[in-house]
Amino acid sequence: MSQKKTKTEKTVSEDTQIETFNIDKVNNFSEWFTEIVKRAELADMRYNVKGFIVYPPWSTISIKLMFDIYEKELDKFGHQPVIFPSVIPESNFQVESDHVEGFAPEVFWITSAGNSGLLEERLALRPTSETAMYPLYSLWIRSWRDLPLKRYQSGKVWRYEGKSTRPFIRGREFIWIEGHDVFATLEEAEAQTREDMQISFNVIQDRFGIPFIGFQRPEWDKFAGAVHTYAADTLMPDGRFLQLPSTHLLGDNFSKAFNIEYMDEEGEKHYAYQTCYGPAISRIFGAMISVHGDDTGLIFPFEVAPIQIVIIPILSKKQRSKVETYSKKLQEMLQEQGFRVYLDNSDKRPGEKYYFWEMKGIPIRLEIGRREVKDSQVTIFRRDTREKEIMDLTTLKESLKSIGKSLTQNIIAKAKKFFEDHLARADTIDQLVEHLENKKMIKIPWCSIDLDGEDCADELKDEFAGAQVRGIDVRETEFPSGEQKCFICGKPAKCFVYVGKQY
Amino acid sequence: MSQKKTKTEKTVSEDTQIETFNIDKVNNFSEWFTEIVKRAELADMRYNVKGFIVYPPWSTISIKLMFDIYEKELDKFGHQPVIFPSVIPESNFQVESDHVEGFAPEVFWITSAGNSGLLEERLALRPTSETAMYPLYSLWIRSWRDLPLKRYQSGKVWRYEGKSTRPFIRGREFIWIEGHDVFATLEEAEAQTREDMQISFNVIQDRFGIPFIGFQRPEWDKFAGAVHTYAADTLMPDGRFLQLPSTHLLGDNFSKAFNIEYMDEEGEKHYAYQTCYGPAISRIFGAMISVHGDDTGLIFPFEVAPIQIVIIPILSKKQRSKVETYSKKLQEMLQEQGFRVYLDNSDKRPGEKYYFWEMKGIPIRLEIGRREVKDSQVTIFRRDTREKEIMDLTTLKESLKSIGKSLTQNIIAKAKKFFEDHLARADTIDQLVEHLENKKMIKIPWCSIDLDGEDCADELKDEFAGAQVRGIDVRETEFPSGEQKCFICGKPAKCFVYVGKQY
Repeated sequence: MSQKKTKTEKTVSEDTQIETFNIDKVNNFSEWFTEIVKRAELADMRYNVKGFIVYPPWSTISIKLMFDIYEKELDKFGHQPVIFPSVIPESNFQVESDHVEGFAPEVFWITSAGNSGLLEERLALRPTSETAMYPLYSLWIRSWRDLPLKRYQSGKVWRYEGKSTRPFIRGREFIWIEGHDVFATLEEAEAQTREDMQISFNVIQDRFGIPFIGFQRPEWDKFAGAVHTYAADTLMPDGRFLQLPSTHLLGDNFSKAFNIEYMDEEGEKHYAYQTCYGPAISRIFGAMISVHGDDTGLIFPFEVAPIQIVIIPILSKKQRSKVETYSKKLQEMLQEQGFRVYLDNSDKRPGEKYYFWEMKGIPIRLEIGRREVKDSQVTIFRRDTREKEIMDLTTLKESLKSIGKSLTQNIIAKAKKFFEDHLARADTIDQLVEHLENKKMIKIPWCSIDLDGEDCADELKDEFAGAQVRGIDVRETEFPSGEQKCFICGKPAKCFVYVGKQY
Repeated sequence: MSQKKTKTEKTVSEDTQIETFNIDKVNNFSEWFTEIVKRAELADMRYNVKGFIVYPPWSTISIKLMFDIYEKELDKFGHQPVIFPSVIPESNFQVESDHVEGFAPEVFWITSAGNSGLLEERLALRPTSETAMYPLYSLWIRSWRDLPLKRYQSGKVWRYEGKSTRPFIRGREFIWIEGHDVFATLEEAEAQTREDMQISFNVIQDRFGIPFIGFQRPEWDKFAGAVHTYAADTLMPDGRFLQLPSTHLLGDNFSKAFNIEYMDEEGEKHYAYQTCYGPAISRIFGAMISVHGDDTGLIFPFEVAPIQIVIIPILSKKQRSKVETYSKKLQEMLQEQGFRVYLDNSDKRPGEKYYFWEMKGIPIRLEIGRREVKDSQVTIFRRDTREKEIMDLTTLKESLKSIGKSLTQNIIAKAKKFFEDHLARADTIDQLVEHLENKKMIKIPWCSIDLDGEDCADELKDEFAGAQVRGIDVRETEFPSGEQKCFICGKPAKCFVYVGKQY
């Protein structure tokens, strides 16, 4: 059995030379985000095209792990991966009128190639892949036997985004997964949008630890070409909503435009029903680091930490080589056990290393000094609670696994508490104003999320400092009583919606 | 212990209705390739942009597995992953003069975006990423402590390829990994090109089973901007060379152009030395299926098979539900054990399923009938030898692992034999002519692979039906005696080179 001596480490630097990170995340979120992206080397913003960033290893490794988890979950729900071209001929792009209208302002156009000058037809650098994939879907789908067809691809999309860009959160090139499913019936397509939302909960909330509410978006805030849009909104530390994946019920809008028909068992032809789903891993990464970080830096969930364990040898002159050998062997052992481990052999002082790797968000630090070598033990520091424990080598694998799990659960619980503390309900306009000032997501009675509610939404935005109607919680079980009125038009409320400010 | 009743299955269809695949791969390779790509659903060629293809699940899953193996190997050799933008401003692209001259004819240009018309500066859709990455490298590298810097990214590149395109082998969009490394000294950079070649052997030859020779390319056949180019050439079934990854010694050509300097321990500034390495997974996939396939279809190495094991229930009226339940349970058990398994429950007849999945290249088939259920066994068919064995459930996991390993080793051995049978040596022009007719890769004495040998290479190509000088085998241990002459100019040979026709 391991000795458990728990103590809380102080965060004060003993050595004033050490470069520390200390920014109040909740009250100075914008500064915190900008600084941590730079200091932890998550993105390099110096690439000389606006809105395009470089992902160094620290973010790339984590993003790759996130992709892997997401793709496995999609596979589990019967999807299969495909790879489609990144360019779309203009004629394909223009087939569905709402879609082209929505996306045309955001498209990068390839117009020429090599020395041969202009291309015969302009090519869109895909902003999303409906119009690349569906012409092929119309060839792939012949009969009811080909349905459902559930496919996804992982890759980049490009959007000539007008709003100011921010690393991971909003840019002109982002990294995502897009799922495109086809069904024989509208009911199955509707069920798929619920399944997509379930996948979002399974992965984003339960694995990456980002709490969110799944919304049915108002009709005036739909995807270009969709019948309905459902989207997951989390809350950033500054109290603003951030949209995570959305899933769209496309109905037969695209199948009619792209001629995706199937023959039923009786030999009759029908247009198919479609859905699409778009988790942007780069943005989810941005949300994840924002939600879990603290004032001293990043905290990664154990599963998606680029490095899970850092080993810091504490070298005294006498036992130097013993400590070095022990640390090296420990690293090899843990790597063989499947952990992502880094041994910091640099000539920096231990305190400096501690601060650096805490800022980088490594979940577990192992400190190795003379005593640890003598007793065949390690001193474990965990990033979330900042607690230290001494553990035996013999049971280390299980201890690390269990600490990793506990750390993830702990930061998820903290994130959930923050999220729930920021939910509020307003029964009067005064309450709404107060909650908005306190940066909350507020549930209010509302006239309608159909198009007849759009005027009220515009007025709300104008009068309440940009507050937006995010939609109806898909897990909502409460319905307005006859007496509750829309705050804006005063008509009887048909639903409860959440409002708040968008990131 | 399992009973081992080995017998060889006949390949003749008992039911003439079954759609079979049967094309002589070696003698009709072009037809074989075109047909298997279509029938096994490896690529859909109907996307309406020339040179751009769609990858359905059957190729995508395998390609993802190949990426995973390749990336892990690069990690093992100290590389770290990054993600760079897919677009390159024209001004970056033009910095290194040889490079821009080499690539300009192949670039797709983005010239406009959204409704705002022309961009201020044209953006190249990257054909390769030197000019995207190196401006950042010049910021990242400050001192000798930052070296070596070893980074790679996985993704797509685009080239406006003039030659006729062929799925996987040559297209205008391909999927690859590119490694870009920086060193303090030329010696370290040279060592890296050897390490890259070793990685190619470890992965492409030992894991994917594609034999090749690593060449130092002649000076007239270098990468645009390189000091030397080294490349792996395999042999396609029709006897033509196919270039697999190349690795380039860039020397300080790019570091001077992009100002990549480091301060040494004495505080003196130096230009760094660079290498780059580009395994195109899409092309390696094309080589892999060509090398291992046989006249009845694909054969995947066990590790990279999209599905490793297919279960075929053989249903009689009496025991239908028992066989179904047993098959379902077997599938679950094998999935839990980590195999990629598919249970073919369709209403096709067993024989039809056999042919279909053999054509698709699944390494192992399990046949489940009444007898198997009764005896708690399975009948195993392996795709390479076409042998059947009966095995007990209790030891099935180990049996399958061992068969998977043996299958991979067997197809690797076959591929090596084919490759080695196609190597030849010519000491006279008559021998050269004969070997060329027999579609061999031929080792001949040669004047020089420096630029002074280029005229001879041109003449060789003209006189011998397109035969090309591929370069010097990097593992070559033989040097010409004073008496051996270049076949073309008659000067004393300085080296042995391989010649052959390019794919």
